[in-house]
Amino acid sequence: MTAQLILLVIAFSVFGLLVAAYLARWVLRFSTGSEAMQRISNAIKEGAEAFLRRQNRTIIGLALLFAIVLFLGYGVVREHRPFDPVGSSTQLAFWITLSFVLGALCSVFAGYVGMWVSIRSNIRTATAALSSLNDALRIALRGGAVSGLLVVAMSLLGVSGLYALVNAFGHVEPTKIPLLIVGYGFGASFVALFAQLGGGIYTKAADVGADLVGKVEAGIPEDDPRNPAVVADLVGDNVGDCAGRGADLFESTAAENIGAMILGASLAAAAEKANLGFSAGVIGVMMFPLVARAFGIVASIVGIMMVRMDKEEKLDPMEALNRGYYFAVVLAMAAFGGATYWLLNSPSAPQAWWHFFLCGIVGVLTSVAFVYITQYYTEYRYRPVQSIAEASKTGPATNIIAGIGVGLECTWMPALVMGAALLVSYFLGKSAFPAAAGMNGGLFGTAVATMGMLATAAYILAMDTFGPITDNAGGIVEMSQQPEEVRKKTDRLDAVGNTTKALTKGYAVGSAALAAFLLFQAYMDEVAQYAGQRMEAVNLANPVVFVGALLGAALVFLFSAMAIRAVGKAAQAIIEEVRRQYAKLPRVHDIIQFPADFKPDYGSCVDIVTKSALRKMVAPGLLVVLTPIGVGLVFKVFITAQDKLIAAEAVAGLLMVGTITGILTALFLNNGGGAWDNAKKYIETGAHGGKYLIAADGKKTKNPTHGAAVVGDTVGDPFKDTAGPSLHVLIKLLSTITLVLAPLFI
Amino acid sequence: MTAQLILLVIAFSVFGLLVAAYLARWVLRFSTGSEAMQRISNAIKEGAEAFLRRQNRTIIGLALLFAIVLFLGYGVVREHRPFDPVGSSTQLAFWITLSFVLGALCSVFAGYVGMWVSIRSNIRTATAALSSLNDALRIALRGGAVSGLLVVAMSLLGVSGLYALVNAFGHVEPTKIPLLIVGYGFGASFVALFAQLGGGIYTKAADVGADLVGKVEAGIPEDDPRNPAVVADLVGDNVGDCAGRGADLFESTAAENIGAMILGASLAAAAEKANLGFSAGVIGVMMFPLVARAFGIVASIVGIMMVRMDKEEKLDPMEALNRGYYFAVVLAMAAFGGATYWLLNSPSAPQAWWHFFLCGIVGVLTSVAFVYITQYYTEYRYRPVQSIAEASKTGPATNIIAGIGVGLECTWMPALVMGAALLVSYFLGKSAFPAAAGMNGGLFGTAVATMGMLATAAYILAMDTFGPITDNAGGIVEMSQQPEEVRKKTDRLDAVGNTTKALTKGYAVGSAALAAFLLFQAYMDEVAQYAGQRMEAVNLANPVVFVGALLGAALVFLFSAMAIRAVGKAAQAIIEEVRRQYAKLPRVHDIIQFPADFKPDYGSCVDIVTKSALRKMVAPGLLVVLTPIGVGLVFKVFITAQDKLIAAEAVAGLLMVGTITGILTALFLNNGGGAWDNAKKYIETGAHGGKYLIAADGKKTKNPTHGAAVVGDTVGDPFKDTAGPSLHVLIKLLSTITLVLAPLFI
Repeated sequence: MTAQLILLVIAFSVFGLLVAAYLARWVLRFSTGSEAMQRISNAIKEGAEAFLRRQNRTIIGLALLFAIVLFLGYGVVREHRPFDPVGSSTQLAFWITLSFVLGALCSVFAGYVGMWVSIRSNIRTATAALSSLNDALRIALRGGAVSGLLVVAMSLLGVSGLYALVNAFGHVEPTKIPLLIVGYGFGASFVALFAQLGGGIYTKAADVGADLVGKVEAGIPEDDPRNPAVVADLVGDNVGDCAGRGADLFESTAAENIGAMILGASLAAAAEKANLGFSAGVIGVMMFPLVARAFGIVASIVGIMMVRMDKEEKLDPMEALNRGYYFAVVLAMAAFGGATYWLLNSPSAPQAWWHFFLCGIVGVLTSVAFVYITQYYTEYRYRPVQSIAEASKTGPATNIIAGIGVGLECTWMPALVMGAALLVSYFLGKSAFPAAAGMNGGLFGTAVATMGMLATAAYILAMDTFGPITDNAGGIVEMSQQPEEVRKKTDRLDAVGNTTKALTKGYAVGSAALAAFLLFQAYMDEVAQYAGQRMEAVNLANPVVFVGALLGAALVFLFSAMAIRAVGKAAQAIIEEVRRQYAKLPRVHDIIQFPADFKPDYGSCVDIVTKSALRKMVAPGLLVVLTPIGVGLVFKVFITAQDKLIAAEAVAGLLMVGTITGILTALFLNNGGGAWDNAKKYIETGAHGGKYLIAADGKKTKNPTHGAAVVGDTVGDPFKDTAGPSLHVLIKLLSTITLVLAPLFI
Repeated sequence: MTAQLILLVIAFSVFGLLVAAYLARWVLRFSTGSEAMQRISNAIKEGAEAFLRRQNRTIIGLALLFAIVLFLGYGVVREHRPFDPVGSSTQLAFWITLSFVLGALCSVFAGYVGMWVSIRSNIRTATAALSSLNDALRIALRGGAVSGLLVVAMSLLGVSGLYALVNAFGHVEPTKIPLLIVGYGFGASFVALFAQLGGGIYTKAADVGADLVGKVEAGIPEDDPRNPAVVADLVGDNVGDCAGRGADLFESTAAENIGAMILGASLAAAAEKANLGFSAGVIGVMMFPLVARAFGIVASIVGIMMVRMDKEEKLDPMEALNRGYYFAVVLAMAAFGGATYWLLNSPSAPQAWWHFFLCGIVGVLTSVAFVYITQYYTEYRYRPVQSIAEASKTGPATNIIAGIGVGLECTWMPALVMGAALLVSYFLGKSAFPAAAGMNGGLFGTAVATMGMLATAAYILAMDTFGPITDNAGGIVEMSQQPEEVRKKTDRLDAVGNTTKALTKGYAVGSAALAAFLLFQAYMDEVAQYAGQRMEAVNLANPVVFVGALLGAALVFLFSAMAIRAVGKAAQAIIEEVRRQYAKLPRVHDIIQFPADFKPDYGSCVDIVTKSALRKMVAPGLLVVLTPIGVGLVFKVFITAQDKLIAAEAVAGLLMVGTITGILTALFLNNGGGAWDNAKKYIETGAHGGKYLIAADGKKTKNPTHGAAVVGDTVGDPFKDTAGPSLHVLIKLLSTITLVLAPLFI
């Protein structure tokens, strides 16, 4: 049965890849428009490719360095232990390092392809908008879907392929294979962290820099071609939002699959011992996560293909996207039910399969709740954003105070939802087996909930990449000075793109939260396997564990500080460069009078921000990688004498409290930033006086309320697009690094 | 021996109270200056007294309501259990409610007296500054010392008095008495929370409102008598910084004494069982915390009396304060060593006493480290504040980004120090007894470290109250338009006051951190006593505990949001009122031209902010009180079926992770706010162009860099003086409320 299941997963993944290739060809067939538009698009393309090339060189260098350390750590420093899954240290080092390198390379590739398609879809979306909103919508979504499908299919293929490889050559008991391929998830998160950090610093430094000198100082609109930083800004959308997010979601799906497999295997083994064995056997249960995800890919594809506008283009594009999404969810859940019935059926515990099916539903409902909460806190129809706009009337200080208030407040509802989801899926899983059997399916229940949430990940990722594509399309249309009606179309798409970006960020935090608990448990299971003794608890009342927990929380704060400060510094460099370019322009009443032949030097801004982002991503990235290693090793050396597992337990404390703090801080940063952004947009719709005040004598002056809101928007930029998304990766990286390094702490 | 020890503690406390009375009389003998100064001082006095009266009415009402609930909960709802320390539910309810009410009343009284002395010392400090800096310094410090001594002595007197009372009438085994008087700490924190919240909202709403319309819109200096909000601002310093902080430190010392007594009693009992009994007996060890604190009062008094300037007044006032402080520390440590030798001497474990003495030293060193770290992050001599000033050059947005970066960053060093202090004192305590004895003195070691840190609390508190007194003195001198040389003197004192306020905030967080761990352990000990079974661990890997932990962290975020937003809202109300008063004034080029006879209506601003602060303190206060109760009871009802202690364990998770998040968030808010404040002050010294730019033609314009720094300063106000200090109380309230309600969760 193992072989058939593996083949099935591989077949579905390959199908996903083929569809991605088909969609890419479909997108590329569309016209690339006028020469003026191509010129801009090419400038974006060049900037993005140059950045990604240089970034990947740095990241691959760091990853190789780490791979060597990993190999030496396992192959030379650590001694072979009786409970190790393979016969020698060298073998262990080989498989873990191999999967790390593969995960890292796949993650680099996923990010690159996401950006590759995105910088080609933007110009085609812009061109299509000249004639048909329907075509523009579909190009943007399908362009996004290329990277969505690729990411999900490739992560599945990687995990199942590695599994097949170890199975064929490793002489390992199948249920122990996941322990050897955890490196794949870690390699993926290692790359994702740097990609998201570098891209996030890039995109927001360019954005903040461009906004501050352009809109605020020079008084020119967004995406105005006279702003030297505008191309860097558009490049940023691609390298931050596409490439970074692609790598991020790639690692999520990979790590969570492996974690769920570890839990599934140990549950199924326990069930067999208790004579409640599943009809699909241990391997069937262990493979369940992969099969469920494989079905999800197909459901996502159907949903994506469905999306189109009606003939008259009266439909809201958001509704078209939602329709496709809901269809994908329903289909995915039906398939999920089928998969639970097929693989999680235990003849002696007849309720088990549908209990787990309900866990999957809990996961889906959690993601829906996260999306709604995100909307409430970041859309200007609701109280929070309106209160920020209101506070802008008394200046930037009250705007900032209100925004920070909203950001801090928005964490409590997600915390409640997460808590409820965890407990409900835990107790559903726990009651899957008769109490007398002494078995606990609770943890696997939370894992299945995560799988349910991630079933439609490919669709979500497509919607996410839709954002920067439409953003870029709008920028190209604006910069090439297309007629008003075309701008209206791209503005409509851009607004939808902003919404989808915010929603998918909510989804990403939600999945990080559920997945984190699953990955903790996998860690504890792994420690038990390697140590041959269970870690009974992660006891916060033990001062060593408490200190680990404290350091985990402090890590989140320090990391956020470094990410935010990096943006501030890089933005200042951009501002100085633009000021330099503007210094010699004539001014009337302090307002720059642009000569008709003014040609800004886009390249210098692109270059400055590229260098800055790459330099500044290294320190926070290494901090995250080295902190858990440091804590684990220091405690192991100084304290383990008294308790064999204490270092591993302290690291678990670091991981768990780091995760809790990380999730809440990410929500604070993401939603605070989003709320500031939309408070500004709300004022631009005319609220509180709009963008300009018109005096009785017809004189138009800047509205200081809008000016205050722009300050908030700018502060929110590094929150929501650099530090926040990087924290999602941090959370998962903590999980995967502890999974990979657990054996070293024992 | 019990009686003697109690008498000794009571005698020392009474001595402290007598010295406080003497100092108050000493301060009151000084002149209250000219009529102009008295007019201002009286306005402040009236405003502060009116606010405190109304606030106390609200708080006492809430406390009585809660006392009734407490009595009913223990006396009626909860059934008597075999392990209860007294024979019936009614007795248990009686003692717990009595100590709650006493704690609450003492806390109200401590806050009131702090404010009472402070509003009388400010005018006397101002008057003395007309002639002698030495007198001004001593009046301000001794005025502060009245409230410092009162707080510390009264908390000691309360705990020892209640102990004596229960001992005489309660028919309880002495080691179980602390379980009955935990209510005292909780009553104190209950009041402190509302006092700090209400006062904090008041002070910063007035400050932000006054600054925004005054400095920014009307262009008049700080503390200018033409600003209608300026009296409210000065009132705020008294009700927020004096009354609030007094109540806060009162509850700290009370709660920590009781917690340390619980741990001491259980350690000494275990030692007797292991034949390692202390020569001072179980009671001696249990009384150790009280004795150590009693000695600390005397040391603080000596330090305070020493402070004076040299004849030529060339000495920096800060140095004079530091000299007194160091002297107090050395003296306190010597006495501390004596107390450990006397009460913690175990003939069979000869190293025990000096191990614990070293723990005390660790506590002192920790507080010193916290003070230095605070200085590094908030003084403009160092990189962090300078980077904020630098970032102000590109506008308010980059100023805010830099400030938030500094705030988030400043958490890591305190986290490391705290971690090190905990582990070192734990392992010192653990190795106090021979390993073979199977005893663990580690937890008591951390408790002793806390006692060491708090030994000089009275001195610290005097320095803290010194801040608002000198601030007010400066305001009175400014508003009554005294000559330049007098202003210089008060400015010098005010600058020192700002430093001492920042330092004592660092000290308060440090003590909250160390104390928190001590109080967790007391909680676990208490649960064990009531349940008759040990809580083996606070196991974060259990999803129920994990959810408790998650909610604890979310509570901190939500509470901070509410506190910050309350300030924003109340400040907006002030701004609108001032704008209303300014609306009809003549303007030239948008600059208000104040008529010579302009009389602002101070009273209306005082009234608006009083109402606003009182209304807005209730919700966040109740949130903190009700969340742990809610979590404990919900989990008890729904989940305890499977594990008797699970609800108590989940509450412990909430408490611990809430504490970790709370400490880091408080550091973020306090130091971020302090850094913004000083970045503005740094620019005002002339850096980056200073306050005004002078053009080539001699035209003076506002420096936008300074304007940007003022935005940051304003944002930082509610951070550092409302939310941050309230979080200190929140942390301790969580500990005391769980201590008091633990029996209800079992």
